[in-house]
Amino acid sequence: RIDGARLWASLMEMARIGATPAGGCNRQALTDEDKQGRDLFLQWCREIGCEVRIDRMGNIFVRRAGSEPDAPPVVTGSHLDTQPTGGKFDGVYGVLAGLEVLRTLEDQGVRTRASLELVVWTNEEGARFSPAMIGSGVWAGEFSLEYGHGRADKSGATIGEELRRIGYLGEEPAEPKPIAAAFEVHIEQGPILEKKNEVIGVVTGVQGIRWYDVTFHGTPCHAGPTPMADRRDPVQALALLCERLYSEVKAYSDDARMTCGDLRAEPGSRNTVPEKVALALDLRHPQPEGLEHLHRTLYRMADQVEEATGVAIDVREEWHSPPVVFDSQCIEAVDDAAKALGCSHRKMVSGAGHDSVYVSRVAPVSMIFVPCAGGLSHNEAESAEPDHLEAGCNVLLQAMLARAGT
Amino acid sequence: RIDGARLWASLMEMARIGATPAGGCNRQALTDEDKQGRDLFLQWCREIGCEVRIDRMGNIFVRRAGSEPDAPPVVTGSHLDTQPTGGKFDGVYGVLAGLEVLRTLEDQGVRTRASLELVVWTNEEGARFSPAMIGSGVWAGEFSLEYGHGRADKSGATIGEELRRIGYLGEEPAEPKPIAAAFEVHIEQGPILEKKNEVIGVVTGVQGIRWYDVTFHGTPCHAGPTPMADRRDPVQALALLCERLYSEVKAYSDDARMTCGDLRAEPGSRNTVPEKVALALDLRHPQPEGLEHLHRTLYRMADQVEEATGVAIDVREEWHSPPVVFDSQCIEAVDDAAKALGCSHRKMVSGAGHDSVYVSRVAPVSMIFVPCAGGLSHNEAESAEPDHLEAGCNVLLQAMLARAGT
Ligand SMILES: NC(=O)NCCC(=O)O
Ligand SMILES: NC(=O)NCCC(=O)O
Repeated sequence: RIDGARLWASLMEMARIGATPAGGCNRQALTDEDKQGRDLFLQWCREIGCEVRIDRMGNIFVRRAGSEPDAPPVVTGSHLDTQPTGGKFDGVYGVLAGLEVLRTLEDQGVRTRASLELVVWTNEEGARFSPAMIGSGVWAGEFSLEYGHGRADKSGATIGEELRRIGYLGEEPAEPKPIAAAFEVHIEQGPILEKKNEVIGVVTGVQGIRWYDVTFHGTPCHAGPTPMADRRDPVQALALLCERLYSEVKAYSDDARMTCGDLRAEPGSRNTVPEKVALALDLRHPQPEGLEHLHRTLYRMADQVEEATGVAIDVREEWHSPPVVFDSQCIEAVDDAAKALGCSHRKMVSGAGHDSVYVSRVAPVSMIFVPCAGGLSHNEAESAEPDHLEAGCNVLLQAMLARAGT
Repeated sequence: RIDGARLWASLMEMARIGATPAGGCNRQALTDEDKQGRDLFLQWCREIGCEVRIDRMGNIFVRRAGSEPDAPPVVTGSHLDTQPTGGKFDGVYGVLAGLEVLRTLEDQGVRTRASLELVVWTNEEGARFSPAMIGSGVWAGEFSLEYGHGRADKSGATIGEELRRIGYLGEEPAEPKPIAAAFEVHIEQGPILEKKNEVIGVVTGVQGIRWYDVTFHGTPCHAGPTPMADRRDPVQALALLCERLYSEVKAYSDDARMTCGDLRAEPGSRNTVPEKVALALDLRHPQPEGLEHLHRTLYRMADQVEEATGVAIDVREEWHSPPVVFDSQCIEAVDDAAKALGCSHRKMVSGAGHDSVYVSRVAPVSMIFVPCAGGLSHNEAESAEPDHLEAGCNVLLQAMLARAGT
């Protein structure tokens, strides 16, 4: 069994880095705070004598050698980066639970047969750099290294530059080696476990995600003398498209999701009709056909609104992460561990993307969820029960041991 | 008669300061570019030997003494600041037409009875600092000096600080002295004169304007796992309110105006429902009852949308400039001048706010409009015919001479 108090203490210590006044964390990918978080993590890893490698995407691989060092390792990991107004658990819990597993084995002098590896993936959130999960995505071969290094934040700084700046541009190639199995533990970030009063989610897959940059091109003009009928007002087009799309998404299915996370008008002067409005859009659905329907609806409605308003609407797809089904044996390993530990549990599909999505391209994978208060995540008030975090970490330990052998 | 070629040359020289790649100007209030524009203007004024005073709001008063220096002066003026993507004529034309009047009288050795004063008002656009026309507004007693100095731009820099920084925080009190009459010449910024093929607008008044900061307060949450029904999404509320309000404004009357010039989501991360969305809203109508109707409609609809979406909507009125009717004798002086010069002309109400609105609180005022291409303004492509600019300047000269006497 792991040490729940030590896990909690490590979570709280990490949460001080980038702590926000409202009790959350702002430790966005490849910022100074991310560097501090990585440094603290590596210090903890050195204390238990693990070997560390860093790849060209800044992904950190921590290895605890097994008795058969050539056997493919059993892997766990998640991310240390947060949303700009993120919480203390999203991602961090998966990393520090992995560390707690290694610490526990070290304490108890347990040597596994296969080696264990703990990974910190770069820029999972997709908040500073788009798309999400790009560290694991490049590593798994979904994106090229050039693409990864070239992604820029709103100020124009790129992942490549920022990796070099904070000293985490590693030497290892960002590419997979054989892996026996991989597990990731994470807070659910949704309301199901809490509502059902269950402690462990046995994650069978991840829903599909498509990201878009939607730009509405209007004609700037004066707020006063210009008749309404003579305007090409990008905000009119934005309002009409969003109104229709929200209605359609909600009517289509309870499983469909639409989020307009960012919005910006240029030049942004109150008495000038904007020249353009930029919208960052996120659509999701657990089934490929459902996601395809939302995708086609977006393009169709954009055409209709363009027609109706005279505002040119440019819809550029930025990212597509299709629905993923996890490995049945890894799912079973999680299910068995939850049973063995006497934890109430249910099978479920993840609503959020995770590094496990890309890891699952090259290795057998499953995930473990624990409840978070009110299902709230990507919010500074994100919170989770120490008991639940301990239970999830014990499930991780048992699943990893089952697959690594002792 | 004024020298149209010299007027045009001065406009083009001023337009180099803050020139944008798309052929417009970005010379926002109290920036380095505004300082350069003011410096150039003062150099031109010194060349014709005028006395210059600067007040505590950075308003510049240029005086050409008359033969009865104690008689209240006849005043003209406008502004040198621009929108972030503004044109070469909005405001600047009124200032440089005033300069051209003074240059012409100097050339021809004409001494007026009453003195003439040419004013450059600070921050007319309201683009960098809200509200618009604040230099003339403080001077006329609509706002206190403390209020004026305290207004901040998006980065937090205040008018007081920026006036000091660029060296235009003058010593004179920002308060009016007796004025015989005031005239302001400006491009129309709307399509009427061009459509009617007329050269001079005799401006009888200015429509009413109300500005609002509308803030939609949502609950940040994750774009994936959070069910649509559990969200308080400020973008849903924004879209619904804008959709309804645009429809109502367009249905209410052809004279009504609604502009959403600025829009911003916080924290602005694609996979997080925003915590808040801020909208800068501008409503206008020529009649007080019409503007009041739009105002009440906004508050009523905001309540309805708040009810429907669960998103708290905070509507804060930022500025109210009621409809203004100009002085009948000044209107007549412009009308007479246009007739005497044989210019086609029509009476009209201004759709844009102008410094003349606040000057009219303390002095008899009227304005002169000339056409601009396609009625386009607050746009880098803003353009006007040299002939029309010359005609407007001659009307200004004649109206000022008629009121100042020779
Ligand atoms: N777990 C998590 O918050 N991932 C961010 C990627 C996503 O948008 O789902
Ligand atoms: N003339 C002009 O563009 N003034 C700006 C104030 C307004 O918004 O009407």
